[in-house]
Amino acid sequence: MCVPGCREELERHFSRRGLLTRLAAAGAAGAVATMPGPAEAVPPRPKQIRVRRFVDLTHTLDPRFPTWDGHPGIELKKVASVETDGFNIFEWNLAEHSGTHIDAPFHISATGQTVELIPVEKLVVPLAVVDIAHKAESEPDYRLNIYDILEWERIHGRLRRGSCVAMYSGWGRHIGTPRYRNRDDKGVMRFPGFHAEAAEFLARERDAAGLAVDTLSLDHGSSKNFRVHKVWLGSGRWGLECVANLHDVPPRGATLVVGAPKVRGASGGPCRLIALV
Amino acid sequence: MCVPGCREELERHFSRRGLLTRLAAAGAAGAVATMPGPAEAVPPRPKQIRVRRFVDLTHTLDPRFPTWDGHPGIELKKVASVETDGFNIFEWNLAEHSGTHIDAPFHISATGQTVELIPVEKLVVPLAVVDIAHKAESEPDYRLNIYDILEWERIHGRLRRGSCVAMYSGWGRHIGTPRYRNRDDKGVMRFPGFHAEAAEFLARERDAAGLAVDTLSLDHGSSKNFRVHKVWLGSGRWGLECVANLHDVPPRGATLVVGAPKVRGASGGPCRLIALV
Ligand SMILES: [Zn+2]
Ligand SMILES: [Zn+2]
Repeated sequence: MCVPGCREELERHFSRRGLLTRLAAAGAAGAVATMPGPAEAVPPRPKQIRVRRFVDLTHTLDPRFPTWDGHPGIELKKVASVETDGFNIFEWNLAEHSGTHIDAPFHISATGQTVELIPVEKLVVPLAVVDIAHKAESEPDYRLNIYDILEWERIHGRLRRGSCVAMYSGWGRHIGTPRYRNRDDKGVMRFPGFHAEAAEFLARERDAAGLAVDTLSLDHGSSKNFRVHKVWLGSGRWGLECVANLHDVPPRGATLVVGAPKVRGASGGPCRLIALV
Repeated sequence: MCVPGCREELERHFSRRGLLTRLAAAGAAGAVATMPGPAEAVPPRPKQIRVRRFVDLTHTLDPRFPTWDGHPGIELKKVASVETDGFNIFEWNLAEHSGTHIDAPFHISATGQTVELIPVEKLVVPLAVVDIAHKAESEPDYRLNIYDILEWERIHGRLRRGSCVAMYSGWGRHIGTPRYRNRDDKGVMRFPGFHAEAAEFLARERDAAGLAVDTLSLDHGSSKNFRVHKVWLGSGRWGLECVANLHDVPPRGATLVVGAPKVRGASGGPCRLIALV
């Protein structure tokens, strides 16, 4: 997993803080238990957002949009029409985790925050995009790791606290084809995701607010233990899945507005994502 | 409808443009037919948005949230749980026009734009809030009219092109009581809304992008012909209903991000509304 020179750089970076030791020692369940939650006190933000254009990071949701289990994520039933009733109105039957959507902490934990309780201050955040498209092209199981993040920081500077860190794997271009879910001959899905250590690093060392992926899951498709979901959502943070158009925002500098649904008790739901660039 | 001196000011304002004459001559169906659509070319917006705080203009949606017809707007069914499946997941059964939500042009017209087709550039807009709370308090059927808008402009300056103009009637405080729908002894709802002439003025003379209300409808509750819906949505523009917390944003200067659902073919749907103040 380590490229030449990278481990040394990593160790220089963190030698005094003992991160690698802690990461190594943390182990699976222990790490989840000791993961710090997002900082309680939101820092004051008297800031200027410079906006030149808006980028829609949302896919259009319809019954053909790929889902985790292969069933349609939404179905619309017309209950009133302009011709007979004066208005067009539909009822939606919606699987909560369909389309471009948010995972709230409650998705993975009975005591986690449900989606309507995520405060609006956590839904307008700096957006950082980490491009692993070349790696994912040759290795569909690729997991975005700490080295990818440090390489991003070497070029773009340290991640701002409270950011959303997005994995751009190029997977969005496969929507509409079986390649998006990419099931192998045993029915196991093969697509990239975050490495659990990267998630832990982003929570512990960078106090990131959210993770985002352009695939169906924060975890890579063949994950059996959903470790990233457990580590990340378990620490009280949110995740975004099936995010669109990450190729059209800069690696650093955009502001993400997460139009999360405000539905009482929900574990997540379809989101409108708008990047202010 | 006219207060002393107001008509004169209005006439001075528009004498050369013949607006009053046109408004008077337009008549009901004619006005809809001749209403200009939103400007096609979106002006370039290299601008700074100064952000000090975020205001959530969204109510939490649950089965008790008031609806037009009195039926629950949403029902959640648990289809997976952490204890048995590792994840909490619900299915939603949703009436499209429930909670804080958007009306797309298709809501009122078979040829109107469905919600997923509204471009993102029309969903991040200047927000203007017109306070009619005192008037609505003594007159539940009150309709926000051209004079209210001109009075707002006298104080705050001319409306920016492409704005969302919001009616603040104070009605939000009635959510949770029968007063929100406010049915009289004949079952007719009594709550304020926009006057159709004001909607026409905002489309024709100010090229506003959207209307917003803190009640159940762009039209006042006892409207029989839904003239504002017809005029406004019929001109290709969107509306927001059941908007929250308008008392907490300034009359002028905020930017509204409309987190509209991107569901193919829908006539609208629940929105996350975030004001950048
Ligand atoms: Zn999910
Ligand atoms: Zn509606």
